[in-house]
Amino acid sequence: MLDTGVRGTRVAVVGTGLIGGSILLRLREAGLDVCGWDPDPDTQRYADQQGLTFAENLTDAVRDRDVVFLGGPLSSLPDTLVKVAKATGDQCVITDVGSTKSTVAAFALENGLAHRFVPGHPMAGTERAGLTAAIPAMFDGAAWVLCPSPEGLISQFRALSRLIIEVFEARIVPMDPAVHDSVVALSSHIPHLLAGSLAGAAARSPVSEAILGLAAGSFRDGTRVAGTPSRRTVDMLVNNRDFVLRQMELVDTFLADLSAALRANDVEALTAHLNQSRGLRESLLSRPMTRSAQRFPVAGPDELELDFLLRLGEAGGYLTGCATDSATVSYTAFQPA
Amino acid sequence: MLDTGVRGTRVAVVGTGLIGGSILLRLREAGLDVCGWDPDPDTQRYADQQGLTFAENLTDAVRDRDVVFLGGPLSSLPDTLVKVAKATGDQCVITDVGSTKSTVAAFALENGLAHRFVPGHPMAGTERAGLTAAIPAMFDGAAWVLCPSPEGLISQFRALSRLIIEVFEARIVPMDPAVHDSVVALSSHIPHLLAGSLAGAAARSPVSEAILGLAAGSFRDGTRVAGTPSRRTVDMLVNNRDFVLRQMELVDTFLADLSAALRANDVEALTAHLNQSRGLRESLLSRPMTRSAQRFPVAGPDELELDFLLRLGEAGGYLTGCATDSATVSYTAFQPA
Repeated sequence: MLDTGVRGTRVAVVGTGLIGGSILLRLREAGLDVCGWDPDPDTQRYADQQGLTFAENLTDAVRDRDVVFLGGPLSSLPDTLVKVAKATGDQCVITDVGSTKSTVAAFALENGLAHRFVPGHPMAGTERAGLTAAIPAMFDGAAWVLCPSPEGLISQFRALSRLIIEVFEARIVPMDPAVHDSVVALSSHIPHLLAGSLAGAAARSPVSEAILGLAAGSFRDGTRVAGTPSRRTVDMLVNNRDFVLRQMELVDTFLADLSAALRANDVEALTAHLNQSRGLRESLLSRPMTRSAQRFPVAGPDELELDFLLRLGEAGGYLTGCATDSATVSYTAFQPA
Repeated sequence: MLDTGVRGTRVAVVGTGLIGGSILLRLREAGLDVCGWDPDPDTQRYADQQGLTFAENLTDAVRDRDVVFLGGPLSSLPDTLVKVAKATGDQCVITDVGSTKSTVAAFALENGLAHRFVPGHPMAGTERAGLTAAIPAMFDGAAWVLCPSPEGLISQFRALSRLIIEVFEARIVPMDPAVHDSVVALSSHIPHLLAGSLAGAAARSPVSEAILGLAAGSFRDGTRVAGTPSRRTVDMLVNNRDFVLRQMELVDTFLADLSAALRANDVEALTAHLNQSRGLRESLLSRPMTRSAQRFPVAGPDELELDFLLRLGEAGGYLTGCATDSATVSYTAFQPA
């Protein structure tokens, strides 16, 4: 049962592809008043067929809304942000779902929109695309990055966190945009390079058909995100180029270490490297976390609260609760034990 | 309903870990008389608890059996093959489930056992280990490589194919051992190197915990097989070293092409490379195949039959049927359209 404050929130989703569409479907399922808009006529038609509430244009979609989620291609977000900010008042919280955060956060700051905008990134998705592939359960239990900042309004961060925790049961990971981009370079963007290289090498191989014939789980899982529409992957990589290239050095080094050990028939070194990989994989499947509660005065000053939030995300932690009364904001936080 | 001939087959599985155990469970489920053996006391105890038929020792397990599957660690297979061959008569067909084929095939030839042994490799598995992780459905619809050879007996290949198709509903891929090893280097062994490098780079990263905090589908799938017991992965890589290192050059080149295009901000080149990867991924999900029937005289000569079989596997095709009457063997074959 949703909290009364959250239930009454009026939301818009602008750009209803795989991610925006999944957000819209869950908000609707939770009983919120949500209006969608997408520039693509096929998407509009499909939304009509599904009985979703869609507006005729962007301005109508966002007018008088409390929260607006910006979806759509990464490169379209700055432009959409300006349009949405113009069509809404200062009480409206704007967030996005783009896979990099530094560019759009810097754009908002440069354009005097930092107080209107909380950069966001829900960490889930599939290699598919479009509203037809959207599912309301996409973000159940997922990490959802939000970027509070000294230039933003902490009240907006709190309201968004509460909405996302209540409606999506997601884990809020508060992060600085640059830290986010550095982390997702390895956790999300480089996996696309590796999957692309495995699939691409197989495509170029003279025994390509035989590879397809023998492909089992390791090849299927290892190439899955190579099925992502190329434009989306390119957008993401180009937008996060410096971090991707820098983090790629770590992967190249590890790969070179494995290859050197194999070339030298050095079973001991090979085993030691692979044990390090296996340890990380085990931590991924089961990470002991410590729960804590943190309180801050609603009226600020915000510095301590901001500091707590950004440290939590960088340390691998997340929020599962954010409650505000007239005097105090209370966070439920988990961090690695 | 199993064919009468197949139903009466008496089988042993020697080495009942993840793969051997799954084979044993399916054979048992299909109603065949199957006896297991494993040198590990914990595995023996677990088998007893589960009510599986296990022998006290290897010799008892394989005595008077029509077919013996050799499981267990890759490096143990040559030794086990000799022991099983000694404990059985010439009528008994021996096959293995190891992930490389050249070494064990050469060993069999050198030791005068090629007429007793059909090298095999069922192309399924998980990153888990042991009989406790075995499941009877492991090989449903999977590719299952068998290596017929001029030194082997084609009658053994036919009998094994029929058993595996009927009991496991697997696709038989007939292949030369060296072709197999070259193909699995890219389809199965290199995915372990890539998964290991992604997980290993994350383990070495200063933001390791934050990476775990934001890891979504692409990282989870991209690191899955890094959870494989290191000994198993090392065995596999070392045993197929030359092919792995050679095929790794293809992957390195593709990765370098992607990185160079990204570094140069060359969106067009990046897109073209990723489209090539995506094309391969699409072929993996949906490959148009042509069905055909092939017949050969049971009495031989075997050359034409062998040639058909080895070409079929190398071309990415497989068998879904193998029926023998007194005069003719009939194969149902699928190959890329």
